Amino acid sequence: MMGSGFIRPAAGGRMPPEAALLGLDWGTTTLRGYLIGDKGTVLAERSAKAGILHIQGGAFAEALRELAGDWLTANASLPIVASGMIGSRQGWAEAPYVDIPATAGDLTLYRHDDFDRPVHIVPGLARRDADGVPDVMRGEETQIFGAHQNATQDGLFVLPGSHSKWAVLADGRVTWFATFMTGELFAALRDHTILGRMITGDRDDAAAFARGVKYGYGATGILQRLFSARTLALFGELPETGVAAYLSGLLIGAEIAEARALVQDADAMITIIGDPELERRYFTAMAHCDLAAGKARKGAAARGLWRIAGANGLLGISAA
Amino acid sequence: MMGSGFIRPAAGGRMPPEAALLGLDWGTTTLRGYLIGDKGTVLAERSAKAGILHIQGGAFAEALRELAGDWLTANASLPIVASGMIGSRQGWAEAPYVDIPATAGDLTLYRHDDFDRPVHIVPGLARRDADGVPDVMRGEETQIFGAHQNATQDGLFVLPGSHSKWAVLADGRVTWFATFMTGELFAALRDHTILGRMITGDRDDAAAFARGVKYGYGATGILQRLFSARTLALFGELPETGVAAYLSGLLIGAEIAEARALVQDADAMITIIGDPELERRYFTAMAHCDLAAGKARKGAAARGLWRIAGANGLLGISAA
Repeated sequence: MMGSGFIRPAAGGRMPPEAALLGLDWGTTTLRGYLIGDKGTVLAERSAKAGILHIQGGAFAEALRELAGDWLTANASLPIVASGMIGSRQGWAEAPYVDIPATAGDLTLYRHDDFDRPVHIVPGLARRDADGVPDVMRGEETQIFGAHQNATQDGLFVLPGSHSKWAVLADGRVTWFATFMTGELFAALRDHTILGRMITGDRDDAAAFARGVKYGYGATGILQRLFSARTLALFGELPETGVAAYLSGLLIGAEIAEARALVQDADAMITIIGDPELERRYFTAMAHCDLAAGKARKGAAARGLWRIAGANGLLGISAA
Repeated sequence: MMGSGFIRPAAGGRMPPEAALLGLDWGTTTLRGYLIGDKGTVLAERSAKAGILHIQGGAFAEALRELAGDWLTANASLPIVASGMIGSRQGWAEAPYVDIPATAGDLTLYRHDDFDRPVHIVPGLARRDADGVPDVMRGEETQIFGAHQNATQDGLFVLPGSHSKWAVLADGRVTWFATFMTGELFAALRDHTILGRMITGDRDDAAAFARGVKYGYGATGILQRLFSARTLALFGELPETGVAAYLSGLLIGAEIAEARALVQDADAMITIIGDPELERRYFTAMAHCDLAAGKARKGAAARGLWRIAGANGLLGISAA
């Protein structure tokens, strides 16, 4: 189960003296551990394919010891903060959602005691729309507060993925957010509908992607425009090797249009937080929509865990 | 392969003397044959699971003989008209699309001679939108011209399904149409995304359906609202037995909103053409959106085949 994911191993495997926090970004597929020093610097980072879907029989404690047992042994008072789906109903312990608007300090950590020492779990965020329908995030709030460190970074934060999140930050508060099932919808359409049967290969076709983005962005809705991924190929006006890129662009363009219609702040600064490939894809898509976007500095999750731990008074060493 | 689908068998198995047309509604999954009398009345009807996806090695002729060999033997001059995916690239012969606007008479039949007698194939329709992107239908045009017999029936025709079609009829012409991948999208979301994992059972929950319709109809786009099928169940505000009905309603509501935004004729009379279950579902959905809709008289496909055959001069017996 453990990956060999040492990225920056601690020298000689011993505990660096200044370690102040073990931060865990514990999601559906992956568990990432950050050993964070007393200035908030990441001293070491590890990851394992130990996301909650991979944990059998509730063996969360074993997975954590396997990832970071040596770090914990070396420092008996090292606090642990965890964010992500580990705090969901399917995770180790359910940390109830906090309603927006919320600052980093409003994320009161949920203390879970079923381990050798307390595991402090970051709660997710919940929002109700005008119809009273809820939306939620869990894990992304930590990345957002890691990327948004002060009011000069107010604006829109976009976290692309299976379930893309868009959030508005104002004066250090998350004041709005929404989930778009873009990535998961793309996979379902590609693998399980007639659109996928038009796809030959999966070439990274920049022209097809651009065309999809622009057509999706101009849509009044996506249910009708989806079919264009079939008809354009049928009429020989889109190469079959470009259908996947076109469909991806179509959905991302529609996501951008929907999100902007919901936010209704044309001037909001946009910051993208994501892995390099998704970040590049959304950055390119926004350029096709004549939108300027910035990319968040790397390490948003670790910085967010550090910040939320501090706001909850967990960083005794740091405060000393 | 043959079904036993005699609905109104000819008496004694002999050829009724007045037969004037063999109409075939030959789609992806099913082949339906209508023996039509010289006044346009359906004398007999048969069906077989011999849609083009079920035909191996191009054995279309064999499938047709198996369905209607006795009818053809009994009347050597009986003309054959076929509509549907049989005229697609994957069918028996590709009948090129006709561009809209188009009347029934503009559907010039494509004569296919690779059979004991000519098979006249109804071409599908094609439309280009303002961006030059094509949309197509094949088979639905025949049902539409069967349901729309005169100008008093002008308005919007809706054919719900895996790929729902909406068409505007004005003065006997199809002046606009569009495809919505609602049904196929529903199946892909239900069977292959996290939304499906919330579904327990598949109860016909009218309240959940209504809620979905209204929320989908009020959407600025569906990518964001899809996630509500998960969050409402997560918060215990939608029974898991109602998630499938809710999701179906959500997509149909969004389809109705999108189509009406595209048509921009709030007063257009709406006629639904579909199998009884889908017809009921869309009729109910439109009522939730405060839209009045009518249902087409049964037998639209056979009436359309008869009408298009007549407009193409194929009904020698009828004209005599």
